[in-house]
Amino acid sequence: MSKNLTTRSEDYSKWYNELVVKADLAENSGVRGCMVIKPYGYAIWEKMQAELDRMFKETGHQNAYFPLFVPKSMFEAEEKNAEGFAKECAVVTHYRLKNDPDKPGKLIVDPNAKLEEELIVRPTSEAIIWSTYKGWVQSYRDLPLLINQWANVVRWEMRTRLFLRTAEFLWQEGHTAHATRKEAIEESEKMMNVYADFVQNFMAIPVVKGLKTETERFAGAEETYCIEALMQDGKALQAGTSHFLGQNFAEAFDVKFANAEGKQEYVWGTSWGVSTRLMGALVMTHSDDQGLVLPPNLAPIQVVIVPIYKSDEQLAQISQEVDKLIADLRKLGISVKFDDRTTQKPGFKFAEWELKGVPVRIAVGPKDLENGTYEVARRDTLTKEVKSKEGIAAFISELLEQIQLDLFNKALNYRETHITEVNSFEEFKEVLENKGGFVSAHWDGTAETEEKIKELTKATIRCIPLSAVEEAGSCVFTGNPSNKRVFFAKAY
Amino acid sequence: MSKNLTTRSEDYSKWYNELVVKADLAENSGVRGCMVIKPYGYAIWEKMQAELDRMFKETGHQNAYFPLFVPKSMFEAEEKNAEGFAKECAVVTHYRLKNDPDKPGKLIVDPNAKLEEELIVRPTSEAIIWSTYKGWVQSYRDLPLLINQWANVVRWEMRTRLFLRTAEFLWQEGHTAHATRKEAIEESEKMMNVYADFVQNFMAIPVVKGLKTETERFAGAEETYCIEALMQDGKALQAGTSHFLGQNFAEAFDVKFANAEGKQEYVWGTSWGVSTRLMGALVMTHSDDQGLVLPPNLAPIQVVIVPIYKSDEQLAQISQEVDKLIADLRKLGISVKFDDRTTQKPGFKFAEWELKGVPVRIAVGPKDLENGTYEVARRDTLTKEVKSKEGIAAFISELLEQIQLDLFNKALNYRETHITEVNSFEEFKEVLENKGGFVSAHWDGTAETEEKIKELTKATIRCIPLSAVEEAGSCVFTGNPSNKRVFFAKAY
Repeated sequence: MSKNLTTRSEDYSKWYNELVVKADLAENSGVRGCMVIKPYGYAIWEKMQAELDRMFKETGHQNAYFPLFVPKSMFEAEEKNAEGFAKECAVVTHYRLKNDPDKPGKLIVDPNAKLEEELIVRPTSEAIIWSTYKGWVQSYRDLPLLINQWANVVRWEMRTRLFLRTAEFLWQEGHTAHATRKEAIEESEKMMNVYADFVQNFMAIPVVKGLKTETERFAGAEETYCIEALMQDGKALQAGTSHFLGQNFAEAFDVKFANAEGKQEYVWGTSWGVSTRLMGALVMTHSDDQGLVLPPNLAPIQVVIVPIYKSDEQLAQISQEVDKLIADLRKLGISVKFDDRTTQKPGFKFAEWELKGVPVRIAVGPKDLENGTYEVARRDTLTKEVKSKEGIAAFISELLEQIQLDLFNKALNYRETHITEVNSFEEFKEVLENKGGFVSAHWDGTAETEEKIKELTKATIRCIPLSAVEEAGSCVFTGNPSNKRVFFAKAY
Repeated sequence: MSKNLTTRSEDYSKWYNELVVKADLAENSGVRGCMVIKPYGYAIWEKMQAELDRMFKETGHQNAYFPLFVPKSMFEAEEKNAEGFAKECAVVTHYRLKNDPDKPGKLIVDPNAKLEEELIVRPTSEAIIWSTYKGWVQSYRDLPLLINQWANVVRWEMRTRLFLRTAEFLWQEGHTAHATRKEAIEESEKMMNVYADFVQNFMAIPVVKGLKTETERFAGAEETYCIEALMQDGKALQAGTSHFLGQNFAEAFDVKFANAEGKQEYVWGTSWGVSTRLMGALVMTHSDDQGLVLPPNLAPIQVVIVPIYKSDEQLAQISQEVDKLIADLRKLGISVKFDDRTTQKPGFKFAEWELKGVPVRIAVGPKDLENGTYEVARRDTLTKEVKSKEGIAAFISELLEQIQLDLFNKALNYRETHITEVNSFEEFKEVLENKGGFVSAHWDGTAETEEKIKELTKATIRCIPLSAVEEAGSCVFTGNPSNKRVFFAKAY
């Protein structure tokens, strides 16, 4: 197959859009801003879901499901949160269609079926969930509530891009309730760490853990923890957030509990989420001009076997030889596809599986049968070697682990060489424009300076890294005193 | 704990509503007609999902995800389908809220943010999916498309009941596209059989396989296959449907393919779905006046162990003894909970786990320690026996299998004794009123007769059973000739 993929250096943004579509991950739908996640893309998302779900359950969380709709009066109860999302809400106003009297076969909204109160399609579920928690919490014995939901949410974005920013997206949202401030903060931090563990060790994407500034904080939170990743074009991508909500939602929805002394107190809350946006991070971290590069942990097909043959007889011999290898690999928990399509040539198949990011390709021809060998190719390095069939399954298993590690280290190396300390605004702009990546700079702590820098450079404060060390310095923009560096970057 | 559960004989409907809430399966939300699925209920749904998903993949299907919204013009393209759902559609008309100028802190729908075209919240996804398939199918080589989606859908029902009929519900919907009529019909039948297999063997609910009459058919289908279950109050419940769509959606969305001779043809379609309604069927098939009864396959906790003790020392001894049993049971893949709460008495715990339908309860007291025994109680029969601890894990494992079978056979026995052949309309009404269940009767095949019988008795034709044998007869209502019996019942 001919890939016809724009290269990253030609146009990174176009490369991304084309790759997502050509590798069969997702496509735009007939609904403005909403995407179709295609089977191959969804299979990767399912692997993410399964691993995250396991991690959530291991840390004591249970799944539940809350309504898609939030009545307007409930939505506006926590004012900051409502204000933060008001401008991007899809609103249901009617509950019935009727035949168009003027156009047979067409429908119109029935004006007699107007809802008394409008329903907001959830952009996030704090409101509906805290209105429910009110009924679930009476005493300290009912706490903590540790609940997660897998769901779709809608945020009416004006400019959308597949996975990165879509009007509807899939995500999980954890919502927990605790008896003490300390316990809620610990939960927020724990979930940030779970996300970092998942993104680094399962997706092979290095992240910086940090805190958001007040400007960038979740609407309605007292503190937002985040993990920030760096894409190959030097732009940052927020990969997950975990919010300490204080007592804001408990107060808005009157969620109180009797403590051990019988005194009524407001409950402390957290919420945390990651979404199908991670699919975008996955593509932009590892892939290359040949197509997708998938970490073995996330690859729906980890190994593809392509037979090279001229006659039906040769194909039959190869198939027989390969049967045992497939069985051996499956025994090791490796997902294998034997691409024995007779409608396509090996070159077409090689290109297709490269485009789709299958980590390891094995080719077998008549010569290999004679010599007792296989040709093993790595997708990440595009290298290949001939291996004896003795011990091949174990070799492939180790190779997959190696590829997973190598991908992480490659991305880590890129990230490490793209954190640049700067001490003047000239330097700041120069690094941002020519090198990209995280710019580590002193900041005077005001929203005003943050805003001005954003206006002038399009860079935002991605986070105040948890690893930041106290050091005396002066703000890169105002020169006012600062006691630690923060990470600026242009971001998705 | 005190259950205070209404009994089935007092008020079956009230018993159901109370049980769903008290056993922590689900509750009504602050959004009209929408439910909250609580963690315990959701854990059961997850088990259903996992098994169905496995069965779908085993039969060659892949998951994908399509948009929540359907533009009105797309929705109305297949006219029969649109007409069938028009009266229960939630409609999004605006995409933004703004501050209410008259009420600080409150929001109103922004009249300047009216959508050019209204969006329907999907009541089912044929329209959006077939509009997508148009881009996916060019040649016979692209067929079949075998795709499933796990999603939420919205149908604006006026009278709602937890799980059985809610405005929003969770389901899976399969949507397949085929080159030939024959293949599409085979797929519809295959998925009906997958559903029957799942509901009977996994949920322990016997079903009748059959065809819907034209009146009861899915809007836009040429044929609807269904599986019908019978609840303990003699009412039927449609547990799953599989539709042969003919070329209706292909024509509406212009989905054509080039056949092997290069000629353009319309694609043939199917769709099939089951929903959280199955949770209602589960409750109403097996449960009793003491609470839920769960088939072991679906129980989030299969075995609960309750210690009986007076001193902390006794509890410590019991815990030590029980540790090995827990490990042994888990090795056999059995989910176990050791209820060592010190805040509740054994009687309370017994009642609580009975209410929640845990299939097997093991109690251990000081006497059991002395004698080397356990007291094993079955939730379904409410019987108990003392067993030696030798071989107890294997015994429990077999017991769980036995309970699964016994539940199915009990329900099957009820169902078999509640299929009644009648040959006059007097008999028909008498059986329907006093005995309930499926009434097997001759019908003249007209929608008119079907409608009249429904008006007079509230019974509908649940299905034309696939097992119906050809026999000459006369319609139970009109006396007109009929060649096979159909199943009537009152239904959920």
